[in-house]
Amino acid sequence: MTAEYPVGKLNKVRQLRVKGRYDRDSVHRILDAGLVAQVAFVEDGIPVVVPMIYGRDGETLYLHGARKARVIRIVEGSEKICLNVTLLDGIVLARSAFNSSMNYRSVTVFGTPRLVEGSTEKLRAMKVISEHLMPGRWDELRVPHESEVKMTGVIAVTIDAASAKVSAGMPVDEPDDYAIPVWAGVLPLTSQLQCLQDDDRLLPDVTASVTVRTLQNRIL
Amino acid sequence: MTAEYPVGKLNKVRQLRVKGRYDRDSVHRILDAGLVAQVAFVEDGIPVVVPMIYGRDGETLYLHGARKARVIRIVEGSEKICLNVTLLDGIVLARSAFNSSMNYRSVTVFGTPRLVEGSTEKLRAMKVISEHLMPGRWDELRVPHESEVKMTGVIAVTIDAASAKVSAGMPVDEPDDYAIPVWAGVLPLTSQLQCLQDDDRLLPDVTASVTVRTLQNRIL
Repeated sequence: MTAEYPVGKLNKVRQLRVKGRYDRDSVHRILDAGLVAQVAFVEDGIPVVVPMIYGRDGETLYLHGARKARVIRIVEGSEKICLNVTLLDGIVLARSAFNSSMNYRSVTVFGTPRLVEGSTEKLRAMKVISEHLMPGRWDELRVPHESEVKMTGVIAVTIDAASAKVSAGMPVDEPDDYAIPVWAGVLPLTSQLQCLQDDDRLLPDVTASVTVRTLQNRIL
Repeated sequence: MTAEYPVGKLNKVRQLRVKGRYDRDSVHRILDAGLVAQVAFVEDGIPVVVPMIYGRDGETLYLHGARKARVIRIVEGSEKICLNVTLLDGIVLARSAFNSSMNYRSVTVFGTPRLVEGSTEKLRAMKVISEHLMPGRWDELRVPHESEVKMTGVIAVTIDAASAKVSAGMPVDEPDDYAIPVWAGVLPLTSQLQCLQDDDRLLPDVTASVTVRTLQNRIL
């Protein structure tokens, strides 16, 4: 497998090209850091975008929803879908509105969707998604009921083309603007998990496992 | 104007209907809290989704990019686009994988795009977008150069249909699962702006204005 995704019409970064990356490592790293993907498909000629949790297994992304959900029905019948995962890292305050922007890590994937059938692959995909959201939690929970697996629709998306775009660092201003006595810089943005909130119906003496407590340290 | 968006095929919340909201207030509040919208359009029959900063003026959303950017060219020629703004509020750890999920505030908008021409509306739209990202900053910065306005492509999207979906609170488990001695609850997620980072090329004695320092307190 090549270290980079082939660059083609679909995934070529055209604006701010210097920020574009096509290596699998950069793409995978951002996909692995995100929690929700924005999944776009076409329904009756109209574009639709839906946020979905997901998981990655090599070059396959798994999405899930209720088996009867519109998104599962439509994506199942789509030839190609597109998804984007964006993590916002800060607001870039330049010396002009024109050069002000955001810092971010973003990945766009074009892929071929396939409905996952058969409870073995489906269950494995459900584990991949669960472990993406809550690493280590799957083995602490009961095995899913057969009815739950049946009620879940799982889509496997093979990554056909992908690109990452990363914007970091300080503003880049017009040469003349550096003489303007206005503050410029970056307001970093971080997303952080906070202290655990216990469910009201916890059994006595049940406390959060090391796995759950470790989740709190996750950096997005 | 009605207090609610009409519910139709496009915007009807079908899964977890109880979480769906159609009132303009709920939709506007989430749009106003978000920083980036995921904008979906169709290019040569293929769905594409792109993260964009935006601003809202009543029932119009403004998006911008380089005048020659693909997204501006395609959206300009689209009859309908869809955009989603999602704010993640936490991971919901249920007693089963099936009932584990996320807390979020999400809005989906279907709208009719129009390329904004004429420098008066364009400049006003650029201010709306800037003020959305950095309230109060516009008046502290120099007026955009005519060339900058020309290089910017602005799209106005009239909201035709919209829905909000809000998930909050503790997990809802299967009745039998409450007897399982496993921890359950919520891991809240917050996105917060951090301390200002000065640009290396600040002029001597230039400090951040009250406006900029206030940005740090923004809650997403």
